[in-house]
Amino acid sequence: MKLSEIDTPAVLIDIDRAEANMQRFQAYADKHELAVRPHIKTHKLPRFAKRQVELGAVGITCQKLGEAEVMADAGLTDIFLPYNIIGKAKLGRLLALNERVTLAVTADSDVTVRGLSETFNDAPKPLTVLVECDTGMGRCGVQSPDEAVALAKLIDAAGGLRFAGFMTYPKTGAIVENEAFLSAAKEKAIAAGLDPRIISNGGSPDMWRAHEVKSATEHRPGTYIYMDRFQAAKGVGTWDDCALTVLTTVVSRPTENRAIVDAGSKALTSDTFGMDGFGYIVGYPDAVVTSLSEEHGTIDFSACEDKPQIGDRLRIIPNHACVVSNLFDEVVLISGNEVVEIEPVAARGRVD
Amino acid sequence: MKLSEIDTPAVLIDIDRAEANMQRFQAYADKHELAVRPHIKTHKLPRFAKRQVELGAVGITCQKLGEAEVMADAGLTDIFLPYNIIGKAKLGRLLALNERVTLAVTADSDVTVRGLSETFNDAPKPLTVLVECDTGMGRCGVQSPDEAVALAKLIDAAGGLRFAGFMTYPKTGAIVENEAFLSAAKEKAIAAGLDPRIISNGGSPDMWRAHEVKSATEHRPGTYIYMDRFQAAKGVGTWDDCALTVLTTVVSRPTENRAIVDAGSKALTSDTFGMDGFGYIVGYPDAVVTSLSEEHGTIDFSACEDKPQIGDRLRIIPNHACVVSNLFDEVVLISGNEVVEIEPVAARGRVD
Repeated sequence: MKLSEIDTPAVLIDIDRAEANMQRFQAYADKHELAVRPHIKTHKLPRFAKRQVELGAVGITCQKLGEAEVMADAGLTDIFLPYNIIGKAKLGRLLALNERVTLAVTADSDVTVRGLSETFNDAPKPLTVLVECDTGMGRCGVQSPDEAVALAKLIDAAGGLRFAGFMTYPKTGAIVENEAFLSAAKEKAIAAGLDPRIISNGGSPDMWRAHEVKSATEHRPGTYIYMDRFQAAKGVGTWDDCALTVLTTVVSRPTENRAIVDAGSKALTSDTFGMDGFGYIVGYPDAVVTSLSEEHGTIDFSACEDKPQIGDRLRIIPNHACVVSNLFDEVVLISGNEVVEIEPVAARGRVD
Repeated sequence: MKLSEIDTPAVLIDIDRAEANMQRFQAYADKHELAVRPHIKTHKLPRFAKRQVELGAVGITCQKLGEAEVMADAGLTDIFLPYNIIGKAKLGRLLALNERVTLAVTADSDVTVRGLSETFNDAPKPLTVLVECDTGMGRCGVQSPDEAVALAKLIDAAGGLRFAGFMTYPKTGAIVENEAFLSAAKEKAIAAGLDPRIISNGGSPDMWRAHEVKSATEHRPGTYIYMDRFQAAKGVGTWDDCALTVLTTVVSRPTENRAIVDAGSKALTSDTFGMDGFGYIVGYPDAVVTSLSEEHGTIDFSACEDKPQIGDRLRIIPNHACVVSNLFDEVVLISGNEVVEIEPVAARGRVD
């Protein structure tokens, strides 16, 4: 099947670029003796999760219990779920999942720890728990190394749980602060007689500086497999590394410089990460995706000498690849202009 | 089943509010002798599409062929698809759909008209086509009443097509410009011997002023059935009219004023419509949803005297209801705190 037979909008994944991206970071991490635990939220495909492990990843990261269940069903055996699992329904599912795979979760409060301990106290197998640390991101996480160690002690003493270390999703660029927090927590934990064997750091934006966070034992990159406009803007990859594009058709040319395509926010999402515009159009570096409705993308071609016509097909690198994967029931795997396979996005829409 | 048994995040639809919203606009339109043709992109549910017709709508509007096919399968018989349908695959599907229901589409270029005419030239039943007009929105559409009439003539002369009038999705607030364009196009078309029997106007933000666009014969409101934070900000409805909420759980309270909930951009979307924050928290009018990651919502409760605790459940009115419907495989229909039904979102994810 040729790419020209695919109707639009569609998500295309260049498998050769994805493979190169996976290999490149794995090689970097191997060189620095850093374990890789890729975040599958970006692709949501068992195929790539398995490939990441084949290439040397120690396991995978999922953000939702539902994603982890899909990956376990597909044969993945080592899953990290860096989330506070709260409430009876999810705790029951977590208990079942822990029997099937090597599993770890995070906690950042005594409330979470209590819920986990009550659930796993009589379980045949203890649950591995890391303490989530807010090293600058301002999202979840304990606020200081002392708090981290206090919570680690609580986990260590709780029935059914096994303390394994510290986890963070760091603020982009804040390498020094991140390392300062993690190394302090690690030292204090060791001094307290605990064994923080895993120090899990994350994120693609700073992934080529992952080795500077010297305390970290593993890194969880997500977007690195596909790259996107944001990663390219940050210099993490080039346009030629971007493996995910949205294939779209020009459906209207109302004015000399305006084109409307059939990819709107339902295909590209409204994520901007503080950038202007909603994507990068391959072959039209000076075009600007000025606005999105749900089913319309509005593009300004005034800075481009050649302008596409109605019926022309464009490929757009989205601002943020991960959220695009979640909008499509299937993606089109390509190699060059050949369609390799149309693959269901198995872990799409797993909201809980 | 009680609401308390629903795990989070989940989309709740208050069916009593939805019913009242549908009735309220239908009554307004009846009073002004304006036909209603609701846009189903907001709910994507056959149940509500049928109810809109029962209450007096002349038919429905879909934005995607795939949505229209779902609605036709569910028994809806009169569908308007205000989109330039381009390319062989979609034109073939359009031909099949036209045999099953009363169908109309739009065109804003001779390229679109040519494709439609080539497809329907030998069809047993002609296709009804309206000219899309850009009356100020800056999206699709011909740029002037003269262009509109020229394209209308082309449709009228084309084999397999029947010209039926003009359509616009107007710029919010630009009532006078919208009416000026549409009335000029209408008069010029009549002067040219054409019959623009449908003048189709759209949008929820200005729906209570729809009667001021005197040329319009029908209105296509979408969001009105659920309302959302943007419509409330525009005064189209009140918080108490908002039928769609995202039910979420507080999973972390890292600081005195910060809470993290399990609804992120995968539940609420990054749509802002120029507003600050990503939603309105029911019962906490002064709380601010400051940022979203895919699976985390960060909320600042510093302006609130009472602050929720870990495990508490919140209901968030999103900035934009329509895009939320597209993110969930099912929605929970509620009446008060009773769960009425868990309903699959039949037309979710219909990307083409």
